[in-house]
Amino acid sequence: MVGNGEKKAVILLSGGMDSAVCLAIARETGYNIYTLTFDYGQRNRVEIDKARCLAEKYGSEKHLEFGLDLRKIGGSALTDDIEVPRGISQDVPVTYVPARNLIFLSVAVAWAEVLGAGSVFIGANVRDYSGYPDCREDFLKSFEKTAGLGTKKETKVSVKAPLIKMSKAMIVREGRRLGVDFSVTSSCYDPDDAGAECGTCESCRLREKGFVEADR
Amino acid sequence: MVGNGEKKAVILLSGGMDSAVCLAIARETGYNIYTLTFDYGQRNRVEIDKARCLAEKYGSEKHLEFGLDLRKIGGSALTDDIEVPRGISQDVPVTYVPARNLIFLSVAVAWAEVLGAGSVFIGANVRDYSGYPDCREDFLKSFEKTAGLGTKKETKVSVKAPLIKMSKAMIVREGRRLGVDFSVTSSCYDPDDAGAECGTCESCRLREKGFVEADR
Repeated sequence: MVGNGEKKAVILLSGGMDSAVCLAIARETGYNIYTLTFDYGQRNRVEIDKARCLAEKYGSEKHLEFGLDLRKIGGSALTDDIEVPRGISQDVPVTYVPARNLIFLSVAVAWAEVLGAGSVFIGANVRDYSGYPDCREDFLKSFEKTAGLGTKKETKVSVKAPLIKMSKAMIVREGRRLGVDFSVTSSCYDPDDAGAECGTCESCRLREKGFVEADR
Repeated sequence: MVGNGEKKAVILLSGGMDSAVCLAIARETGYNIYTLTFDYGQRNRVEIDKARCLAEKYGSEKHLEFGLDLRKIGGSALTDDIEVPRGISQDVPVTYVPARNLIFLSVAVAWAEVLGAGSVFIGANVRDYSGYPDCREDFLKSFEKTAGLGTKKETKVSVKAPLIKMSKAMIVREGRRLGVDFSVTSSCYDPDDAGAECGTCESCRLREKGFVEADR
């Protein structure tokens, strides 16, 4: 517990279910929260709106939408004209966005340094699925150390990933305990123009699996 | 020596003298170069044009201008309405841009991963001046390790800082040896609207000192 709520944290908020639960955890722990959402040229535009709703709902002190067009870098089905695969993969899938969390965490640390915030929260989790290298705990630990070396001496930013060891089902249960309204989240990699989820991409499948197993 | 020039490198190119010399070194070493310049809302807009000229001059395979508006993050005299100090400081100066190299290197690594480039070059140097934490060697080493953990298993990006131990005078001499046209570089933190250098900011002073000492 942080206690008097004086402590600040930057929350990486994608608008998906994981970061929503992560936000709720940070809020419950007593942080003053600053939410950060990236418009990186992702196919799923709905999640940016969902993130904004979540930020408001959870009383974010400031919600920052930060633009950086990763389509210029390319290399991912989430940003490029590469087909989004269906089902759950074993290896690093084409939906991996090169170095995305490295970039997002770097911007979060920059903002934390300016705000004087001691923590950055990220909804990374690997139990159901560890295909993305930038969601793993050893990466996050190493990043924290690097960020400490690359910022002012007095800047100490802790990278917190409270969901890291949770399965999707555990995330759903934790979210329910905290009263997270999952309808204000969007996980789909490839929604239609109206924002409706496809139901067949990896992210939709994992989400569905989480809800099914949470009810068992 | 790389040899047949088949190897690719991403060069962080600011348009200043350091990154220009760094680019010339990478070129001489035989890399196929991909230049990356950030439009991050910096006061010095001329450097973006200079970088473009340098990229063309050195036969960059592709020159990428990547926009990310660090004014949204704030906290620096280079992007905000904070006065640029005159002369050379001892501590971390207000011209420090929070986590800038962490962010820039992260994007560079993302691009390197997509290109299959094994190296990222950065013109960081600390001999005359080590006020910026994100220019130090221990940070760069740590970053390289972190980037390795946060990208695909087959992605190995080496962070190269060939100027790291050079003084400004040494950088000038190395640039001259390589035929770098320093008139196509801009180092000023606070140029006037026509792009003329102020001559009194820390960066102008260090540049001047470099040229004076190089001629001794």
